[in-house]
Amino acid sequence: MPQNDGLPSFDAATAVERTEGGGLVAGLDPGWDVGGGILNGGYLLSVAARAAVMASPHAHPVALSASYLRAPAAGPATLTVVPGTAGRTLAHSYVTLSDPSGPALTVQATTATLTDYASVYSQPMPDVSPVEECFSLAEHAHLAPPGVQVPGLSLRVDTRLDIATAGWAFGQPSGEPVLRAWMRFADGREPDPLALLTFADALPPTSFAMGNFGWAPTVQLQVFVRALPAPGWCLVEARSSELAGGWVDEDYRIWDSTGRLVAQSRQLARAPR
Amino acid sequence: MPQNDGLPSFDAATAVERTEGGGLVAGLDPGWDVGGGILNGGYLLSVAARAAVMASPHAHPVALSASYLRAPAAGPATLTVVPGTAGRTLAHSYVTLSDPSGPALTVQATTATLTDYASVYSQPMPDVSPVEECFSLAEHAHLAPPGVQVPGLSLRVDTRLDIATAGWAFGQPSGEPVLRAWMRFADGREPDPLALLTFADALPPTSFAMGNFGWAPTVQLQVFVRALPAPGWCLVEARSSELAGGWVDEDYRIWDSTGRLVAQSRQLARAPR
Repeated sequence: MPQNDGLPSFDAATAVERTEGGGLVAGLDPGWDVGGGILNGGYLLSVAARAAVMASPHAHPVALSASYLRAPAAGPATLTVVPGTAGRTLAHSYVTLSDPSGPALTVQATTATLTDYASVYSQPMPDVSPVEECFSLAEHAHLAPPGVQVPGLSLRVDTRLDIATAGWAFGQPSGEPVLRAWMRFADGREPDPLALLTFADALPPTSFAMGNFGWAPTVQLQVFVRALPAPGWCLVEARSSELAGGWVDEDYRIWDSTGRLVAQSRQLARAPR
Repeated sequence: MPQNDGLPSFDAATAVERTEGGGLVAGLDPGWDVGGGILNGGYLLSVAARAAVMASPHAHPVALSASYLRAPAAGPATLTVVPGTAGRTLAHSYVTLSDPSGPALTVQATTATLTDYASVYSQPMPDVSPVEECFSLAEHAHLAPPGVQVPGLSLRVDTRLDIATAGWAFGQPSGEPVLRAWMRFADGREPDPLALLTFADALPPTSFAMGNFGWAPTVQLQVFVRALPAPGWCLVEARSSELAGGWVDEDYRIWDSTGRLVAQSRQLARAPR
């Protein structure tokens, strides 16, 4: 199993190594949980993306679609990568992440090589309070609503909620399924495309903003990485459009510290009861 | 190859049949093209979804993620469905659509059974002109900008562009990568979840609204079906958030004739030159 070796927490926790037999293995870190021993879906996607990049002629994940078959256990995991078509611009592959009980996550991965190109058109960053005026999930663990446990994820990803979307933490849910937060790794490791995959599923469920604090297990998640993020805080916004029949969507947009849109994601999840 | 048998055009063109050997086959219809003999990506996704539903205990596609490996030829196609986990609420599978030259489309499919449940929260339909004041793509083929061919798709899917987003057809591109149109099948066949998959990729590229009339080949497309659509016209809106480095996203939202959000999609495409 990969060892820490002084790496930043995220890099150690998402490390993928090739065995002598040619297989790919990882050690899923129990510290990247969302509560109840469930590992964060974005974290798992980052692990799968590392495997996709290792097997690709290209350096970056640009489009990943993942089906979450079941929650894998922390500990040893294996990854298989089936290559698809590959060309000068992009390469396709199909990644399966399995724990000892079997497949947990299947991912269609498109890799490419992102460079520092300028935007022709870019959706501007929404208005948001500066970081220092925002609400730290980790620092306010003692204020969490009854039954809400601050997960390991919130200790590793420093999450500063825009006060405008943090009313639920004070018993005043906004009723709008929108959350917005500044985000960076707690140990200062700078964002990159692999990190954006984790950020793209790292906010609490949008249902928290409606006063419902249950878990919303991801069914399918797609993430696009649109640019190499600049160092510093990223702004992450999650928004739901339709909640019905036990299903909810979550739409993420992520801007880097320069205000550029660097990632987008959408997931379908089972709505909390 | 499946025959028409008096079926509505869409049902005949997306029919999937099981062979005596147990395989699944379809006949890709050249009439569902986007110009240049290229078949529409949403149409191909509807074919793959039919195969997923045939192999599932559930009736409807609710989340599909497709990687477009290459453009398949019209004519005979085969479909393979590898089942994933399945339960009372949903089932996962992995579908590959191949033409005689090999795999063209791979799809992660989540199927479930949608019923007539009410929305707990729903994003309202945007303001839009009534159908009779909109701009018919098929009827105005003669006005198409130089080099723009009205594709077969536009003859089969009646597309009525909101005048507010149709300036490009009159030589006055808005400069905003947004298109909005009422949509229904030209032969009156009512919408259903399979139809929404086609609608979710049936508008011209958003770059048309910026005065760029090139083709934008889809790399990866995810569609969620959120509810059973009511009969009548659907409103389909496409919007891009970031155009850079030769990549563009297209985000679709689809409302049915009662104003309910019934589908969402997002694709990453190569931007037209």
